[in-house]
Amino acid sequence: MERTFEEYKGLIDRHLLDLIPAIDTKSNTLYEAMKYSLSSGGKRIRPVLLLACCDFAGGNVLEALPFAAAVEYIHTYSLIHDDLPAMDNDDLRRGKPTNHKVYGDAMAILSGDGLLSTAFEIISRDMTMYMDDVTQLKKRVRAMNVIAKGAGIRGMVAGQSADIENEKNRVSSEMLEYIHVNKTGALIKASMMAGLYLGEPDDKMIDNFTQFADNFGLAFQVSDDILDVIGDVKVMGKNPGQDSKDNKNTYVSLNGLDQAYETLNMLLDNALDAISEYYDNAEFFADLVNKLRVRDK
Amino acid sequence: MERTFEEYKGLIDRHLLDLIPAIDTKSNTLYEAMKYSLSSGGKRIRPVLLLACCDFAGGNVLEALPFAAAVEYIHTYSLIHDDLPAMDNDDLRRGKPTNHKVYGDAMAILSGDGLLSTAFEIISRDMTMYMDDVTQLKKRVRAMNVIAKGAGIRGMVAGQSADIENEKNRVSSEMLEYIHVNKTGALIKASMMAGLYLGEPDDKMIDNFTQFADNFGLAFQVSDDILDVIGDVKVMGKNPGQDSKDNKNTYVSLNGLDQAYETLNMLLDNALDAISEYYDNAEFFADLVNKLRVRDK
Repeated sequence: MERTFEEYKGLIDRHLLDLIPAIDTKSNTLYEAMKYSLSSGGKRIRPVLLLACCDFAGGNVLEALPFAAAVEYIHTYSLIHDDLPAMDNDDLRRGKPTNHKVYGDAMAILSGDGLLSTAFEIISRDMTMYMDDVTQLKKRVRAMNVIAKGAGIRGMVAGQSADIENEKNRVSSEMLEYIHVNKTGALIKASMMAGLYLGEPDDKMIDNFTQFADNFGLAFQVSDDILDVIGDVKVMGKNPGQDSKDNKNTYVSLNGLDQAYETLNMLLDNALDAISEYYDNAEFFADLVNKLRVRDK
Repeated sequence: MERTFEEYKGLIDRHLLDLIPAIDTKSNTLYEAMKYSLSSGGKRIRPVLLLACCDFAGGNVLEALPFAAAVEYIHTYSLIHDDLPAMDNDDLRRGKPTNHKVYGDAMAILSGDGLLSTAFEIISRDMTMYMDDVTQLKKRVRAMNVIAKGAGIRGMVAGQSADIENEKNRVSSEMLEYIHVNKTGALIKASMMAGLYLGEPDDKMIDNFTQFADNFGLAFQVSDDILDVIGDVKVMGKNPGQDSKDNKNTYVSLNGLDQAYETLNMLLDNALDAISEYYDNAEFFADLVNKLRVRDK
């Protein structure tokens, strides 16, 4: 693993729009709306993790780009739909007007649908290029399978659905964890697993990174909950205090700030433990963990 | 090809819900909302065509069921999203309240997202079962690829987007054809091609059925436009005259009823021509064509 976070991110930023299949000019607005949200300065954490895991497992990073783009398309569609008036009704995302504020609700729904479809279109297009290389083809089938599961009704959509359904109630700790694990953790974990499958992971590596991803993915959301309380608008690209204004269920609202910090640190320690045996080569992942720790102090 | 339309449809109806991966009880509402729209009496034309084409090309119909279910999930998600207040704002679909009238806008958006995700989840899950049968695996990659393309931003989503964008304008004949070909035709065509790929088609069969599908898919929408003017609510499951009340662009509104009939008949004749050499074995498809003709008189 020779690349930094910024180098992986640079690769993704350069290819994220190129990888969208060429569409008819009659669908220009759809394309513009998709591009708008894809270009609005995301951290690219999911695709970076995918590429880094592929790299770590000895895979070819450049050949993993369609999968990296796919998880970012899926993440971006979920943000567009989440921001809709019928859902979280947010006007601001990453410091810019949300998709529906610019293109209207109908086009926002369709650009989300378009991004989700495009994710699987470029994955399947990529697969057709490996019809004569069965080893590579099988890696792609496994990678797609974890992405599809992580994005779907046993992953991200499940979490968002439980979140929406419970937004008016104070939820149990168990339900809050279910929401966070699925809404945020599932696609992060899927991105990491897909990256590994595109390389040559052994079973132990899969197990270790599964444990890493479970803890890191949940930590990512707990950190977000904390940041909403202590953060400022420049760092977050959205208004701090939005969650509590919306009476959102968060780790902080349910358990208080101190307990949320404790949970976060425990999760991050667990994540580090999970990859401790790769210490010499897994610096990239350890750095990510520690960045999340610092970020919230 | 030994089965009738009703027999293929029976297979699909029996397995459409079974094939949804088991989800956590915390996501029950999401599952209920998906089930509601899947169970509301669709004609199942797309999955039936997929199975029939698979059968015609010598494939195993039962093994094609996950793909048949997938195209019906995709079709159903598109209806749920199209019916939303932000889109066509329809209260009635197949004679029942639309998804958002029952479950609210947020859950309707999510159940659509869930169905689209599930389509690709069950396709990828199916693929993982053929890791040791490369011939079957490759067929599935090809089938998925045409489905993903037909459903996405060069297919169904493109058509819906162009439709929404032009709903306030009188469109050109070229734009109307673009809308219909993509919004309705693309997924019908993709279903047929996916079915063939799951069998053992030769290049000629692919060419002939491509031509059949191009004509049949467009005819299907022209027939729908005509039915909206002449039909009754019992046959249609929605209120006739809805399109003209909504000032929708249709073949009838643009060209008049007589011209629409003429276009329909031309398309159906072309469809029949395309498969004329299979006359003895392609009765199933010829019947479908003629049913569409009768349906609109």
